Amino acid sequence: MCHMSIEQEILDRIKPDNSYRTLVDETVFQVMEAVRREIEGSGLEIEVLLVGSVAKDTYIPAPDIDIFMMFPETTPRKELERRGLELGRKVLGGEERYAEHPYIRGLVNGLGVDLVPCYAIADTSRMRSAVDRTPFHTEFVKSHLSEGQKDQVRLLKRFMKGIGVYGAEARVEGFSGYLTELLVLRYGDFRSVLEAATQWSYATTLYLEQRGETDFDSPLVFYDPVDLDRNVASALSTDCFALFIQASREYLEREREEFFFPRTREPLSMPEIRRMMEERGTSPVIVRMARPGLTDDNLFPQVKKTLEGILSLLRGGDFEVLDSTWYVDDDTAFALELKAHRLPVAMMHAGPPVWIEHSERFLEKWRTGGLSRPFIRNGRWMVMARREHPDAKELLSSDLDQSSLGSGFRKMEGLSVQEGIEVFTESNRRALSALLDKRKNWEV
Amino acid sequence: MCHMSIEQEILDRIKPDNSYRTLVDETVFQVMEAVRREIEGSGLEIEVLLVGSVAKDTYIPAPDIDIFMMFPETTPRKELERRGLELGRKVLGGEERYAEHPYIRGLVNGLGVDLVPCYAIADTSRMRSAVDRTPFHTEFVKSHLSEGQKDQVRLLKRFMKGIGVYGAEARVEGFSGYLTELLVLRYGDFRSVLEAATQWSYATTLYLEQRGETDFDSPLVFYDPVDLDRNVASALSTDCFALFIQASREYLEREREEFFFPRTREPLSMPEIRRMMEERGTSPVIVRMARPGLTDDNLFPQVKKTLEGILSLLRGGDFEVLDSTWYVDDDTAFALELKAHRLPVAMMHAGPPVWIEHSERFLEKWRTGGLSRPFIRNGRWMVMARREHPDAKELLSSDLDQSSLGSGFRKMEGLSVQEGIEVFTESNRRALSALLDKRKNWEV
Repeated sequence: MCHMSIEQEILDRIKPDNSYRTLVDETVFQVMEAVRREIEGSGLEIEVLLVGSVAKDTYIPAPDIDIFMMFPETTPRKELERRGLELGRKVLGGEERYAEHPYIRGLVNGLGVDLVPCYAIADTSRMRSAVDRTPFHTEFVKSHLSEGQKDQVRLLKRFMKGIGVYGAEARVEGFSGYLTELLVLRYGDFRSVLEAATQWSYATTLYLEQRGETDFDSPLVFYDPVDLDRNVASALSTDCFALFIQASREYLEREREEFFFPRTREPLSMPEIRRMMEERGTSPVIVRMARPGLTDDNLFPQVKKTLEGILSLLRGGDFEVLDSTWYVDDDTAFALELKAHRLPVAMMHAGPPVWIEHSERFLEKWRTGGLSRPFIRNGRWMVMARREHPDAKELLSSDLDQSSLGSGFRKMEGLSVQEGIEVFTESNRRALSALLDKRKNWEV
Repeated sequence: MCHMSIEQEILDRIKPDNSYRTLVDETVFQVMEAVRREIEGSGLEIEVLLVGSVAKDTYIPAPDIDIFMMFPETTPRKELERRGLELGRKVLGGEERYAEHPYIRGLVNGLGVDLVPCYAIADTSRMRSAVDRTPFHTEFVKSHLSEGQKDQVRLLKRFMKGIGVYGAEARVEGFSGYLTELLVLRYGDFRSVLEAATQWSYATTLYLEQRGETDFDSPLVFYDPVDLDRNVASALSTDCFALFIQASREYLEREREEFFFPRTREPLSMPEIRRMMEERGTSPVIVRMARPGLTDDNLFPQVKKTLEGILSLLRGGDFEVLDSTWYVDDDTAFALELKAHRLPVAMMHAGPPVWIEHSERFLEKWRTGGLSRPFIRNGRWMVMARREHPDAKELLSSDLDQSSLGSGFRKMEGLSVQEGIEVFTESNRRALSALLDKRKNWEV
């Protein structure tokens, strides 16, 4: 069977071989031993636990090694954080990161290792932070996933990575590792997950043995078998959900390696970008700001919020934005496609109905200074008023600071705004390409 | 008192003097006698009745003389119409007109005379056509309006004429003569009507002795004292209603002759029109069609319907129309002010959500030929599509016949469309001036 062979071929590439396994296992052993040694000397009662895809044996290279340091429930939160970071720093050197609470990330034998403090709890009802759930997830998958299904999870992860929907982090808003495992548990194997996905629609609701009772407004709901009040797919965006459905359809119709390993793709060339924009007759706008010094998980939500702020400023200024995206590199670029970046000076301004008493105030205000006298239309006062910012660049340059931006962008460091033909420079190439290139990862 | 003197002055100008009264009375006598002579010879039992403002002595020059020929209720409708027109034609020569049913209009001694066939009914519950009510209106006003109030009605009519809200006909959609009489009966005199109007708001409801029970969605409701199921102000547009309120406010603040007799006003000059448009940066469009051979009462509703058809075509084509008007002269001109008359070729075209089964059809259709590949946005398929008509003139020239136009305009005889600077010709001057000149009649 043709599809078996391609999936086998992919599996041969992604399944860790013996030497890789040995490297991972030894690294895990080494770090856990080091943590235990530190604990021994400190008099703390901390359990050290390997969790995540390495513990579950569902990882594909290169995995994050997640090691949890489980503190007694009686430990005050502040102390847990302080002690946890201290231990992590001693073992890994590494840098401090934040998820819901801080942890230490380091590199050991070329592998990423996260040392995360959490509470040792008896069940999830006693949970005090999101990470407390992870050991239960690990335990659940280890005890439910069959040996053969582990490879099916690997295939699904690689497929999702290939099409660009793998990872619950803010940059992707896709499927988490745990969600891929639950999907394989729910449907049996890789292909069955894809076949099921072609039948999904918005708000498809899944569970294993038991359905939860909470309602979620999400494209996909998967009740967490270890905590029925939680939707495992809560971070999944509608677009990643839809993209997975579409990729499943197309893969099942014609399986190709590119779904797992897309070809590297050059950004569109500047002449191509220019030709496309000119054919469309629309107006490009590029807004650039310095990249704030933040980790990805903190940066991307702020980038998105800032883009929303830019869009709402433009829309409030009567500009129609057809499409928009962002591109983060050395700095942050927001690429926008407007129906027009220049509007007529005149705009219709509606006042109160004539029969309202304070309508006289509108008349007073607009007796002079408008581009027409006040006049009546459908019983209301109207006037042709002068637009404050008929140009998009002018509006953005002057009023962006009044928009709701991500906190890292509020100072608008390094702000520059370009519009029309002035955007066609090499430094804007990747941002413009991100805007215009609508090829999916698996497409040529 | 200053205001008394101006109102007295106006009254001196508009109140018919003795020689004018004699002319009117003699004309009435002459026509009624002629009708009676015709009836005598015919063996018909028809009563001849003077109705309207001449009968009520509330007219201002030059009045329409309304003479009703009241047929027995037993007369079949067809016969009433045939006989009525025949009689009218014999007496007046004149031309046939339609209100709800046909009548004859002619000119006698330089005065307009309407000869209208109707049914002689005992009360309004037996009414068979709208004109059957008129004799009751005439009778009601004659028996209720005091001698002094007749002049107050004359002032109110002249005021409304001056500001442009007098007449229930389609061209104006203003206050009928009967409504002005009821307003004077309701409030006492001319100034009291204006003072009351400054306190009106949308859906103000008035009546004399008794309120009707029917609800009307009208800016003004005045229950007809001779038929409580009818709103006398049903033809009044919101704009005429609002304009009367505003004129009342301003007149009471500073009475001036111009409210009754506005100065004749030249249309804006072409350089002035051009200067205004250029200052605004908006795009003018002129659509012209031949004027259908119809009476005003039939023409104007069709003109309005046609303007609506033009607007809906433009809006459907993504053009934003800021303002519009029409001007009927030798032909019919529609003057429009657009945000822009040229749009970019590209437009965002939304398809179905990805998870809908038939979304594949959208993909098939747009796989090629669009200005982008199909892509996913908020779970929906989208594509940058090519706009069929990026130019307003092109859209109007090509698709106006598919719009809902007034019947007299459906053949689009003599259609011409101009946009941008090509509209600035002397033949468009009056139409453009009607669009741009927002001065109220009483303003300088």
